[in-house]
Amino acid sequence: MAEHVRYQLFYWPEIQGRGEFIRLAFEDAGVAYDDVARRPGGMRAMQRILEGKERGALPFAPPFLRAGKLVLAQTAAILQYLGPRLGLVPRDEAARFEVHQLQLTLADLVAEAHDAHHPIASSLYYEQQKAPARLRARDFVGERIPKFLAYFERALARNAQGKRRWLVGRDRTYADLSLFQVVAGLQYAYPNAMARLAPRHSRVMDVHARVAQRPRIAAYLSSRRRLSFNEMGIFRHYPELDQAAQRGARKHAS
Amino acid sequence: MAEHVRYQLFYWPEIQGRGEFIRLAFEDAGVAYDDVARRPGGMRAMQRILEGKERGALPFAPPFLRAGKLVLAQTAAILQYLGPRLGLVPRDEAARFEVHQLQLTLADLVAEAHDAHHPIASSLYYEQQKAPARLRARDFVGERIPKFLAYFERALARNAQGKRRWLVGRDRTYADLSLFQVVAGLQYAYPNAMARLAPRHSRVMDVHARVAQRPRIAAYLSSRRRLSFNEMGIFRHYPELDQAAQRGARKHAS
Repeated sequence: MAEHVRYQLFYWPEIQGRGEFIRLAFEDAGVAYDDVARRPGGMRAMQRILEGKERGALPFAPPFLRAGKLVLAQTAAILQYLGPRLGLVPRDEAARFEVHQLQLTLADLVAEAHDAHHPIASSLYYEQQKAPARLRARDFVGERIPKFLAYFERALARNAQGKRRWLVGRDRTYADLSLFQVVAGLQYAYPNAMARLAPRHSRVMDVHARVAQRPRIAAYLSSRRRLSFNEMGIFRHYPELDQAAQRGARKHAS
Repeated sequence: MAEHVRYQLFYWPEIQGRGEFIRLAFEDAGVAYDDVARRPGGMRAMQRILEGKERGALPFAPPFLRAGKLVLAQTAAILQYLGPRLGLVPRDEAARFEVHQLQLTLADLVAEAHDAHHPIASSLYYEQQKAPARLRARDFVGERIPKFLAYFERALARNAQGKRRWLVGRDRTYADLSLFQVVAGLQYAYPNAMARLAPRHSRVMDVHARVAQRPRIAAYLSSRRRLSFNEMGIFRHYPELDQAAQRGARKHAS
């Protein structure tokens, strides 16, 4: 399955962020990868590619992957490329497109998770947009997270072939690994809201638990390679946003 | 090239929105497609699939495509599926991934274009979030549009094989058609800002002009199949947001 290619991942060294979805794929497959920007001189190498000083496609932003002559950006595209090479997708073309579609929907959720604390501008600090963040987080937790979780719950419930335990086909795909990561991130950012939502989304929560227990993933999560969630990443814990969400939920419930 | 498959596109009938990127691909290829929700009873058919009452993958939201047994959502995934079937991508696998990566970056820009007028919640009216929209639009037009346009300008300048006239390879791909649509949408929403940005992004503007002049696209654009931009879609013209952007630009320039 694994080819003798040297995989180089380029991503910010201090956060899980979007790079984590790709790290999890390599870790679950047990395939070695070079997390370039986390070693000395790596940030400079990443910058050179972003500035267009190397051959190959030009990335708009990290993460991107280098594999031989190929340079490929966009998390979902990287996972689609790696899927068959790491044994993380079924053989069937339609099933592979379904996995990719689910990954793109997870990517939409990730973008919204970021914008919940940065609704005005990525270039400003959270502290400069706290008031609109409170409003957006209320909508995100009150409307959007439930909508997305319900969607993945239904997708799981439809997959009889995978005994309703995985999103597509008989075995885990990179989309299941990513669903684990999204749930972990949302639980970090919104512990109250997620505790409230968990009972109604038990299949999603089971995927999270099942992925966390896979031997290679468990080993990774307890290793130093796994960075901690923090307030520089996509999933940030600001208690006031989790509370704002609760108020939103109460308002909707009344 | 064209297979004898009946392509059914499902998308909201009153807006260009994300469905337009797929319409443009069919139109340029000269391949017939059924724009289901725009004919009587079509909205009900679309709703049935969204509710999970049909076989095949479950879409999170429109647009989605049905082709034989396949149901596929997510604009970029649909275009990736159609690309080889409609003759809108090169043969080479790396080049196809590059087209897809560019399309995903355009999708990120489209999501930001939407959020510029809806920074708080999709479920609220623009009028309920005018003040934060003014702030977000200032950042979008002052920082984000220039960053994206500069990126596509550089991608074009790197493509010697396509004489720096198309994004990837020798001929137009679906990403070029989508770049046309994004420029058209931004020009509709922010005429002042785009007039100011055009001279510095002449390769991007040339792609826009070159696509508009392709015979089948020109015929489509003047047909009744082409919906007008409007204030229900992704690209909306609110003069106060275009002006907010100008003030932002002046502030940055000072």
